[in-house]
Parts: sequence; structure tokens; C-alpha cells
Amino acid sequence: MKTAILSVGTEILFGQITNTNTVFLSQQLNLLGFDVMYHYTVGDNPGRLGEMIENIFKDCDLIITTGGLGPTEDDLTKETFCEVMNDRLVEHKPSMLRLQEIAKRRKRKLTENNFKQAMIPSRAVVFENDAGSAPGFALSYEGKTAICMPEPPREMKNMWFKQVKPYLEKQQTSVIYYKMLRFFGIGESLLETKLLDLIDAQTDPTIATYAKEGECTVRVASKRSTKEEASAAVDEMIEQIRERVGEFLYSTEDETLAECVGRKLLQRNITISSCESCTGGMFASELTGVSGISAVFNRGIVTYTENAKMDELSVKEETLNKYTAVSEETALEMVRGLQKKTGSRICISVTGYAGPYGDDRRPAGNIFIACRFDEKEEVRELNTGHSERNWNRRYAMLNMFDMVNKILDENR
Amino acid sequence: MKTAILSVGTEILFGQITNTNTVFLSQQLNLLGFDVMYHYTVGDNPGRLGEMIENIFKDCDLIITTGGLGPTEDDLTKETFCEVMNDRLVEHKPSMLRLQEIAKRRKRKLTENNFKQAMIPSRAVVFENDAGSAPGFALSYEGKTAICMPEPPREMKNMWFKQVKPYLEKQQTSVIYYKMLRFFGIGESLLETKLLDLIDAQTDPTIATYAKEGECTVRVASKRSTKEEASAAVDEMIEQIRERVGEFLYSTEDETLAECVGRKLLQRNITISSCESCTGGMFASELTGVSGISAVFNRGIVTYTENAKMDELSVKEETLNKYTAVSEETALEMVRGLQKKTGSRICISVTGYAGPYGDDRRPAGNIFIACRFDEKEEVRELNTGHSERNWNRRYAMLNMFDMVNKILDENR
Repeated sequence: MKTAILSVGTEILFGQITNTNTVFLSQQLNLLGFDVMYHYTVGDNPGRLGEMIENIFKDCDLIITTGGLGPTEDDLTKETFCEVMNDRLVEHKPSMLRLQEIAKRRKRKLTENNFKQAMIPSRAVVFENDAGSAPGFALSYEGKTAICMPEPPREMKNMWFKQVKPYLEKQQTSVIYYKMLRFFGIGESLLETKLLDLIDAQTDPTIATYAKEGECTVRVASKRSTKEEASAAVDEMIEQIRERVGEFLYSTEDETLAECVGRKLLQRNITISSCESCTGGMFASELTGVSGISAVFNRGIVTYTENAKMDELSVKEETLNKYTAVSEETALEMVRGLQKKTGSRICISVTGYAGPYGDDRRPAGNIFIACRFDEKEEVRELNTGHSERNWNRRYAMLNMFDMVNKILDENR
Repeated sequence: MKTAILSVGTEILFGQITNTNTVFLSQQLNLLGFDVMYHYTVGDNPGRLGEMIENIFKDCDLIITTGGLGPTEDDLTKETFCEVMNDRLVEHKPSMLRLQEIAKRRKRKLTENNFKQAMIPSRAVVFENDAGSAPGFALSYEGKTAICMPEPPREMKNMWFKQVKPYLEKQQTSVIYYKMLRFFGIGESLLETKLLDLIDAQTDPTIATYAKEGECTVRVASKRSTKEEASAAVDEMIEQIRERVGEFLYSTEDETLAECVGRKLLQRNITISSCESCTGGMFASELTGVSGISAVFNRGIVTYTENAKMDELSVKEETLNKYTAVSEETALEMVRGLQKKTGSRICISVTGYAGPYGDDRRPAGNIFIACRFDEKEEVRELNTGHSERNWNRRYAMLNMFDMVNKILDENR
């Protein structure tokens, strides 16, 4: 079905908010098999909004709208759709009761404006909003359908998953099944090249690649008449992809590298500690984003100065003098000192030049990572060629997780 | 001038990339005094693109486009604008030489497709691309102007600042001057309420608020005939804002709290160390994002377990037993132990329940932060009411920087 996403809100035109709703809805609608043909944004202006709706319906059958359902005078999305789609607003009792309940709980009096939120087009299918106050709805007229949702991303996503998605799925005669494959260590363009013939030949399953700072995601989706058929087709395609680039695939569960590592550590009850120089705590910070990780994560130490490296990790002064702080030798002594101190089974260290500057010997982006699992040791040297500080830090952090992930898989 | 931003690229309609170009261009164009009326996105389809351009020019005088300037068959932005705006493509010599140079450096042969990038409309004002290979341009016809830029954000921004912005400024008869004010500790809605009469009465300077997870930014901009007039008007408005909400204003220099704190520590050469429990290294990670910070940042310790707190920071076992790890007492012992160990003048600690769960005594979001500057000590208790782990962690981290910032300002 030819579909357009329409965002209503002057703040978007000012660049005051990033329109993440449109990204989310584009992904979701494509997954359901809708053809998203256009994105539009218009300010809180009923004249321009009305013209735009009429214009979109010339070419599209479905408009998905966010924004303009709130209580203020600026919020005119419902009124405008009613005008274009020949309907009028009526009170929606359950939403009115909900508003009154919220007001009672917060000990506030409802103003005239608030009641506006409980009004919906008379012919609409209502999507109640259990995460906020403005309900959404679907309205059809002369073969065209508009779906209106509130703008706050949390409310919109909640309404999408609980009500809008099932509503749209019911209109579809087939089932969509998909998996998100996560890769590290391969760039998007090389990944695409390796999969090009599969991508070019795709009818079903479809393959789409997404890139994000040093990581890549591939979505494999199939639309069939049953879920079993669709999932079988997806699994078969995943096997083909695995044969080509399996060494870079770390998860088929749409999880970050940190989440993947955290999950494995918890499942196998393996303790871990980290010591970081150039990443300054980024590894520990990411890992502790995983809920429950305190069961296995013992300690993170950020040793930014030479003194701290000697003090905390028993790195020898001679080593620092002979090889400098940015060296394989220092990285190894850091990780050995850390294991001695903490007794954690896995210990990981990093030292390097994050940038923008390096020194006489080593450029920015030259970074050493050492990982110890019980008695086994490995060192990885990075030469990113980048001088951008946060790029190098993030890339080093991802490499630390990649090393822990690989060492976990190799030592089962 | 009535302006529309038009993004070209099927990957945007798939939700494969977040359209950050449009956010950037919206902010920049508004700052220059252009009225951004619409955002549009269309796929790599010349028929639909052509119709869209014609449609936009019915209402707008200026279209700013990104995307579709590359070497592949899908890239048809230039061709389409030529058709609508009655021009034809000709070779642009300097761009062709640049392409050949790049190819030579990379030891690659140029294909037919590559040459396409050096073609531009015959009447265009060319914007050379010194960060990539596809040049941009401005093309005018019958009182309407189109500006086309490449899609990669780094190339686009480079071209914007060096060439497109000066080009557009020359078309303007006035000068824009602005400041970005950064706030912490006040929500966007309360901030807006406190400034509402100023915002409502605004003609010049204009005031716009932006919110981002726990932080707020206010942009004050003035458009006058000289820079002196504009900056005087902005400074006067900033004084009015300061009178109302000055206690929450931490910077007028568009810097993050971490950057602000890092700058002050470096300027005053004051050493700092941190020890973190629930934030897991987030504070150290943010602070070490500041270039040059190694001169004052000594050490960061992530003590996730009780043992680690005793071992690294000499927290007493009795304290942990009596008050638990999440308490004012533990936070204070952590920071005292850290100062003893590192000798850093400022030491900061944090301990709390990030969520999703707390314990019998304390809910998720109950967090204690202790800060020591030489002999002075302060403790801050947070009760966020949130259970979302990363929200609480980020909010605690911002509060840590806020405490350091305040203690630095109070002790000059």
C-alpha cells in the first residue's frame, strides 16, 4: 500500500527536535510490507496541513501522522483531517474518563483545553493511549486511510505496538517475520559487496543493511502466508549470509556487542574486570548498562596517568620508560596486574592515543588492547588512521568487547 | 524567504539512516532568518522527485536539497533539477581535475560513472567539495532557487560552513548573532514557563528552547543591520534570562556540562579523581572525552562490588553492614578513601540503584553523590522516581558534573 509519513510540528521545522518517530515508523511500516513513498513535515498551521493532506492522498492510500493531538490551540491535526475527510469531532467517553482520572490523581482541575484531547472523529477507530492523555485513531474516507498518533516517542511507540501495528496487520493477508543480524569488524560497504548478489536477487526474503559508527546491522525479512514459512525462509537466508561473512556476525538477536558479552558472562557466570586508559571508562560504562551485571563485573579502573598505572596495576617503571605507556608491553602488564589484584577470570586493558594528537613515535588512533582469560593472553593493536578523539575511543571500546566475545566463544 | 528542505534517498524512507542533515539545516537556516516551511523526503525516483520539486516551488522560493549527487545510476538529483529548471549538465573542469587527482592518489581508474559527479548545470554557482568528490551548486530560474548538497553529513556540513552559508548570507541584508545558553537542574517546561512572557513578546531577539535528556538549551538570536547591534541585543536578553533562571545556567558557550567542568579544571590546574558504582564509569568516560584532560584527571575507579569498595577505597565493612552500600555514609567514605589514595584535590563518588530494581529500603533511582574539594565535603541525594536504568545513570552522571561545577565556582 502506498504510504506517506506526515509529521506535524513547528518545532521540527526549527530543528528543535530530531524526528526519530519517522525513522521508527519507516522501519516498522517497511517490515509490515507497506511502501513508504514519502516523508513530510509541516508546522502547526491548519491551512498548509490541509493542503498537504489533500496533496498526499492524490498519490498515497495511507497517511501515518504524528503530532498535533495535544491540548493547545496549535494542535489542529484532528480538526484538519475531519475537514479533509468529511467528518466531525465527537466526545470519546473512555478518553474523557481517563483524562478526569489523571487530573484527579495529580490534583489538578481540567481546563477547557484539556477536554479537546478526548474529542475524536465520529467514524474513527480509536487507539486508546495508556501512556499519555491524547488518544490516536484511524479514519477512512473514499478508500483512503489516515492514522493519527501522538508525538511523544514513548506514547507513540506504545500505541504502535499495542494497537496500530495489530490494526494494520489485520489489513494484511500475509505474515512478516524478520531477524536483525549484528556485525562487527566489517565496514558497511564491504559487507554490502559480499552480499550484493543476494541483495540484488532479493524478492523474498529481503535484505537491508544499516550502519552505525563501527557496527553494521543486516535485516532479513520474509512475508509469507504463515509464520512458519516466513521464519524458515529467513533462517535459510541467514545460513547463506553466515557462510560468507559469519566470522563478523556476533548476534542474530538485535543486541549490542556489550549486551551480547554481558549476556554470555552472566549465563556462564564468568567474572570480569577492566582497566582503561584512552577510553576513560567507556568500556565499564557500557558493560554496566546491562541489568544484573553486578553479579560478574568486579571492578573497572581508569588509569589515566603513569602513576596510576604503576599504583593500581603494578606496571613497572622500566616498562613505561622503555616502551612508553602506549605499547603492547604496558597493555599486558596492566591486564596481568589487574588479574592479580581482582582475581577476575577475564581481565581487559586498553592504552593508546585517542587523539587529536599522538607522539613522536605513534600517531593518534594507535591503540593496544590486552585480554586475559584465566591464563590465556591476547593483544590486539589498532591503527585507526583517525584523529577524531571520540571516534577512536568508541572504536577501541567496541574492539574490547569484540575481543572478550571472541575469547569467550573460543574457550567454552 | 519561504524555504523547504528536500532530502533525496530511498534509504531514508526505509528508516535505514536518521535524517540528521535536515535537523542541522533547519537550525542553520532559521538562524540565518530563512522561514523553513516544510521538510520533504523522496526516494531515488526522478519522476516523483520532479513532481515534488514543481509542487514545492508553487509555495516556496528556495529548496535546499541533500542527496542524489553520487556516481550511481540512482543518483538523479542534478538531472531532475535541470529538467524542472530548464538547464542542462556541462562538465565542471576543476571538479573533474579533483576526481582525477583522487583516483590517482588511490591508484584507481575512473569509470564512466565517476565522471558524472563532475557534471553540473550550466548556469549553476558551483560549491566545490574539498571533503569528498561530488560538488554542490545553486541554481536559479524564474525567481526560484535550488541549492543541492551531497548527503554525507561531514561533506554537507563542510560545504555548508565554507560555501553555502556565506552564499546565503550575501543574499541577506542583515546580520544574525546568537548565543546558546546551557541549563541543568530545571526541566524544559518549567524553564519555558519562567521565560514565557519573554518568549511570547519576542520579535527580536528570538528565544527558542531545546531539551535533551536532563539538559536544556536556550538559543537567543538577533537579526540587525550590524553585528554590534545584534550582539548587544542578545547580551541584554541574556541578562534578563539570567535574572530569572541564572542559578541553573551553567554556560553561554554551547558546551556540555562535562566540557564546562573540564575547561575550568584545566584553566585552574585542579586535579580530579572519581569513583563510581551505579554509573559504572560514565563520569570518567565523559570527562576523558575532553581533549588534554590527562593533565588533571588522575584516576577513575569503578567499584561495583562491596569488596571493591573496601579494597580500593577503604570503605569500612561496618559502614556497609550498618548503612548498606547505597547510603550517604558509604558515598562519603568512598570519596575520602579516594582522596587519600590519589591526592587529587577534587574527588567525587556515586553509589545508588540505577534500576530497574532497588531493595527493601530504597527504590530504583535513589542515588548518593559525594564531592570533596580539598577539605570541603558535600553530599547530594537523588530520588529520580524513574526505574529506567540508563536514564538514572545518565542523570546521576550529570549531577556529578553539576556538583563539581558548583563547588569549583564557590571556591575560587
